[in-house]
Amino acid sequence: MSKIIRKNELSFKEYTEGILCGNRSVLSQAITLAESTLPKHNELAQKIINHCLPYTGKSIRIGITGIPGVGKSTFIETFGLYLTEEVKRTVAVLAIDPTSERSKGSILGDKVRMEKLSLDENAYIRPSPTSGSLGGVAQSTRETILLCEAAGFNTIIVETVGVGQSEIAVDSMVDFFLLLLLAGAGDEIQGMKRGIMEMADTVAITKADGENITSAERAKREFENAIQLFPPKQSGWVPKVTTCSSFANKGIKEIWDTISKHQSLIEQSGLLQKKRQEQTKRWMHEAILYALKRNFYSNEDINKAVQELEEKVTDGKISPFTAANELLSTYFKNIS
Amino acid sequence: MSKIIRKNELSFKEYTEGILCGNRSVLSQAITLAESTLPKHNELAQKIINHCLPYTGKSIRIGITGIPGVGKSTFIETFGLYLTEEVKRTVAVLAIDPTSERSKGSILGDKVRMEKLSLDENAYIRPSPTSGSLGGVAQSTRETILLCEAAGFNTIIVETVGVGQSEIAVDSMVDFFLLLLLAGAGDEIQGMKRGIMEMADTVAITKADGENITSAERAKREFENAIQLFPPKQSGWVPKVTTCSSFANKGIKEIWDTISKHQSLIEQSGLLQKKRQEQTKRWMHEAILYALKRNFYSNEDINKAVQELEEKVTDGKISPFTAANELLSTYFKNIS
Repeated sequence: MSKIIRKNELSFKEYTEGILCGNRSVLSQAITLAESTLPKHNELAQKIINHCLPYTGKSIRIGITGIPGVGKSTFIETFGLYLTEEVKRTVAVLAIDPTSERSKGSILGDKVRMEKLSLDENAYIRPSPTSGSLGGVAQSTRETILLCEAAGFNTIIVETVGVGQSEIAVDSMVDFFLLLLLAGAGDEIQGMKRGIMEMADTVAITKADGENITSAERAKREFENAIQLFPPKQSGWVPKVTTCSSFANKGIKEIWDTISKHQSLIEQSGLLQKKRQEQTKRWMHEAILYALKRNFYSNEDINKAVQELEEKVTDGKISPFTAANELLSTYFKNIS
Repeated sequence: MSKIIRKNELSFKEYTEGILCGNRSVLSQAITLAESTLPKHNELAQKIINHCLPYTGKSIRIGITGIPGVGKSTFIETFGLYLTEEVKRTVAVLAIDPTSERSKGSILGDKVRMEKLSLDENAYIRPSPTSGSLGGVAQSTRETILLCEAAGFNTIIVETVGVGQSEIAVDSMVDFFLLLLLAGAGDEIQGMKRGIMEMADTVAITKADGENITSAERAKREFENAIQLFPPKQSGWVPKVTTCSSFANKGIKEIWDTISKHQSLIEQSGLLQKKRQEQTKRWMHEAILYALKRNFYSNEDINKAVQELEEKVTDGKISPFTAANELLSTYFKNIS
């Protein structure tokens, strides 16, 4: 990726002007810059993001999650095309997937996954950054949201695989959280994992077509019962359960209508502004914690000592608190 | 509290000998020492804990949670007395409650809450430390568990109020997690909050006596259905749902039997050892993160700058990432 930057080193002005007039190639290069771990790149990226800041925040930010096999890509393709064609919106699709092997060379991967949407001139698909840790990926995605908004996209879709902690990260960056679920034996547990269902503003049972319709409807009723057990959202919004089929293009419009309705509700009550402000503050503090942690664990002496002390600790030779203290005093001695 | 230490400054030898022969007064002083934020106290506490380490880990560690009003104190009193009188166990009750007003001067508070148990010579009740943050309280509680085990208590009960993040901290320090729930309109949501129900090894509906029996039984059936939706535990353990009455002394023995059965299961499969080792490692890394965070935010210059930058960030004047970078460079300049 850094090759692209080296080939056409753009100036700050070229970057910001390019982004603000919606030039995708420049947008892509700016995102790559923000994802880079080189201090030089990062510094320039921060300057660019700050310049773009007044042009951000005007989109609807939607998080979409679901386990592998639920049909996320086909759903996002169908949903995205509905938005660009029927509602005349501009759509940016970002992915958070720190564990994925797919993301290696995934530009091709994502374009294949969403073939038609990737050719749509009102859509922009950006694959997940390849860097490993969730903290890093989440931070890049937040920066990417801002850059895409500055480039004029008024609908941001953040996609994540519903298997881990990344949904919580996504929940802290979107206005609306859509959980995709599959009907079927044993699969009812998928949304209950790690409290994902609790975060959902809408649950959609996918692949509700052909022979699946009956089981999808049954799953819908089950989830409607389960969702009643959760405390109501701060906004008073009661999470919806629905069925949809990307293949038969059914239930897609209804999901968009629900999202619009939810957005109006939180916009009018002032909750959207409040939520965004809280999220922004949280981004700052998380960026701090992430940097403190990275700085500590990337310290060479610490790195060596950690493994040694972990062993001593699990063998019961020293207490975990003493081990932590030893590591901390090594660290602070090192950096001062 | 620090008064106690000043009055009778014990030596390292007096501390460790006192703890290992089960002297409660010395145990209490050692816990106070571990809770102290003074480096001098902390250093001695660490030495004591390390010395005690070979005598720890032999207890059953039980986490008990539930919302205010569920009857936690009466349950723990009845349950604790059952353990000391009928099963001839020794019981230490610790509390994690960083938000509580109660903990101010709570020695009296806890003794009133559990009047009989506090007089039982085979029980020891230690109130929650009064220091504010969850990270700090969790760390003290972990140290207290080790000290109580070294003092010969073979059953550790960690009590927490089921309203926040503290359950997750407790889950990372116990072998068995008991969730207390109240039957009654609307109250079914209480265990679903923040994924607490998912952590439970057993759910007990309290106050199942008199007129409440019917509603308790109905709640039991509802929770049995709900709990099926969760993925099975790593141990293969299927969470139980039961009813109990502290007042009528019903269902108490059954809960202990369930805990014993669970403990045998995870002991025999080697999972207990594995779980404890993972917990210990986690304690080390959490202690590190907590210290890094505390060190950062307690820095005076940072403290001033944080509020200022938070405002700029929520006003959209600078990006949260730039704000984080600014704070971090101030911090690292300060400490080097």
